[in-house]
Amino acid sequence: MSIDRLQEKINLMKNPTVVGLDPSLEHIPPQILEKHVMAKGETFEAAAAAVLEFNTGLIDALCDIVPAVKPQSAFYELLGPQGILVLKMTCEYAKSKGMYVICDAKRNDIGSTAEAYSAAYLGTVKIGATELHPFDADALTINAYLGSDGVMPFIETAVKYDKAVFALVKTSNPSAGEFQDRFVGDVRLYTAVGDLLEEISLHTVGKYGFTRVGAAVGATVPQESEFLRERLKHTFFLVPGYGAQGGTAEDAACSFMEDGHGAIVNSSRGIIAAWKKTGKGYQEAAREEALRMRDELMRAIEKRGEAGRPRQIVHGN
Amino acid sequence: MSIDRLQEKINLMKNPTVVGLDPSLEHIPPQILEKHVMAKGETFEAAAAAVLEFNTGLIDALCDIVPAVKPQSAFYELLGPQGILVLKMTCEYAKSKGMYVICDAKRNDIGSTAEAYSAAYLGTVKIGATELHPFDADALTINAYLGSDGVMPFIETAVKYDKAVFALVKTSNPSAGEFQDRFVGDVRLYTAVGDLLEEISLHTVGKYGFTRVGAAVGATVPQESEFLRERLKHTFFLVPGYGAQGGTAEDAACSFMEDGHGAIVNSSRGIIAAWKKTGKGYQEAAREEALRMRDELMRAIEKRGEAGRPRQIVHGN
Repeated sequence: MSIDRLQEKINLMKNPTVVGLDPSLEHIPPQILEKHVMAKGETFEAAAAAVLEFNTGLIDALCDIVPAVKPQSAFYELLGPQGILVLKMTCEYAKSKGMYVICDAKRNDIGSTAEAYSAAYLGTVKIGATELHPFDADALTINAYLGSDGVMPFIETAVKYDKAVFALVKTSNPSAGEFQDRFVGDVRLYTAVGDLLEEISLHTVGKYGFTRVGAAVGATVPQESEFLRERLKHTFFLVPGYGAQGGTAEDAACSFMEDGHGAIVNSSRGIIAAWKKTGKGYQEAAREEALRMRDELMRAIEKRGEAGRPRQIVHGN
Repeated sequence: MSIDRLQEKINLMKNPTVVGLDPSLEHIPPQILEKHVMAKGETFEAAAAAVLEFNTGLIDALCDIVPAVKPQSAFYELLGPQGILVLKMTCEYAKSKGMYVICDAKRNDIGSTAEAYSAAYLGTVKIGATELHPFDADALTINAYLGSDGVMPFIETAVKYDKAVFALVKTSNPSAGEFQDRFVGDVRLYTAVGDLLEEISLHTVGKYGFTRVGAAVGATVPQESEFLRERLKHTFFLVPGYGAQGGTAEDAACSFMEDGHGAIVNSSRGIIAAWKKTGKGYQEAAREEALRMRDELMRAIEKRGEAGRPRQIVHGN
C-alpha cells in the first residue's frame, strides 16, 4: 500500500524527510542556466532544460539517503508546457532512482473534474483502447475546502491505482489561522477538516495503521501538531515549515507517533539552495544539508520518544 | 481594468455567460478523436490534437455571441504536457477572437509558490533579460483556504498585469456545506471568506464598482446567492452550477445586481456537449444552446430587476 511503501522507505533509510523540488530559477546555480541559454536562447526551453539538469543532479546526490521528493507544480507551470514536460520527466527520474514522489499541486474540484485531476496525477486516461499515465506520481497534495465530494474522487483513484493523497489541514503560513483556526462548533476548522478526512478514508488503512489520505500539518505551531497527532491516529502527516519557514526539528518532531512513525518532514530551499551558503557545488551542499537535517530530526524524534507524550494538551483545538 | 473589460464585453453582447471548455474526451464528437487517432495512434498527441480542434471549433461558433470562455485545467492536465500545450493554445486562440479567458485551475499556495502560480497564469517569468508569458489568461480561479497571504500574491500580480482572480466562496456541489456552511462566530465560513476577500481587495475597485477579486458563488442555493449579493457589493460573481448541476436561470439571476451587472454564469457540458442531445453538428448545437441560455438568463435577470430586490433575506448566513 502506498503509505506503507513510504513508511518502509523511511525506515530503511532512517530518514523521515522529503526534499521539495521547487526549482525557482534563482535557486539554480547560474552557470547551469547560462549554459542552456547559450544553447537555446532566453527561452522556456532553456529554462526547462536547466531545471531538468538541476533536478536530476539533486536526485542523483540524494537518492541513497532521502526517501522522497516533492516537486512543487507551480515552478514547473511557470515555464509553460515545457516546464510541465520537465515535471513529468522529474517524476519519472525520481521513481527510476527508487524515490517516492509526492506531486505538490494542491488540486481541488468536484465530480468529473476532480476525477480528471486524480487520473492525471495518480491514475490513467484511456485514449481509444490504450491506457496512458499522464504523470504517475505516488501521491498528490489536495485542498479539501469543497468538502467530501471534492475528496472522494481522489480517494477512489488512490485505492484503484495504489496511490495516496495529502490534504491541507493546517498550513504553515502566518495567516493560516484566518480561516483554519476559527471555531466551527466545538473544534477549530482545521480539526474538523482533519476529522472528516480520517473518517472518510478509514477503509483504506494499511499495515502501519495509516489511511491513504495524509494530512499536511505545518511545523510552525507545535502545540497544534501535538494536538492533531493525538487526535488523528490513522493519518500520516506531511510536515512543511521546517527550516526556512521557522519550524525547528523539535517542532517538526511533534508530528510523529511515539514509535517514530507517521510523518515526513519537508525541506525545499534549505536543501536545494544550500549551495548559496557554502560555496560548494549544489550537489555536495544539498547532500550535506540533507544529512544534517536527517540527523537533527532523528535526534529530536528519539528524544521525544524517550520523554513520552507530553501530558498537557492545549485546550479547544 | 480587467473586470471592467469583462463587464463591457458582457454589456456589448447582452450576454452574461461564460462557456466552460471542459473537454473530457467523451464530450468530443467521436469522428474528431478517430481522425487524430488514425494519424497519430492512441497517444496523448492525438487526444490533444482532438481537443484543440474541438475547442477552436467551439470558439469559432461562439465568439460573436459569448463574451468569455473558462478552460478547466484538469482536462488538459489529464493529457500530460501535450494537453497543457493545448491549454495554452486554447487561451491564445480565444483571446485572438476577442474572448475574455478565465483559466479555471483553483490554484492555492503561499509565498514564492503563490507568486509562481500567479506569474504562470497572469504575469510573466524572466529568463535572462527576456520576459515571457507562460499562459497569459485574463483571470485565474483560486482557493483561499490558506488565508490572505495565500491570496495577496495573486492580487499583486493581477494589479501589476491588469488581470483578475476568482476565489472559491460558496461552491455548487452537494457537500459544499460540510465546511463552508459552518458558523465561525456570527457568520458562516463562506461569508467570512467573502468578507475577507472584499476587504483585502477594495483598493482595486474599477469603474463598475467591482474589485479584481471575484467570488465563485454556486447557483444551486439561491438564498445564499441573494445574501452574498447583498453583502459583497464590490465583488463580481462567477456562477457555476447552472444547468447540468441543477441551478435554474432564476437561481443564477440572484447573483446579479439590480442593474444587471456584477456576475457571469458558467455552462460547460450543457453547451459543449449539446450535440449529443440534438443530432446536429457540435458547433451548431453549441451555438443554439448558448443563445437559448442567454435569452433565458436575460429574461430572468430583467424580471428580477423589475421586481426589485426581495425583502426577505435568510438569517444567519
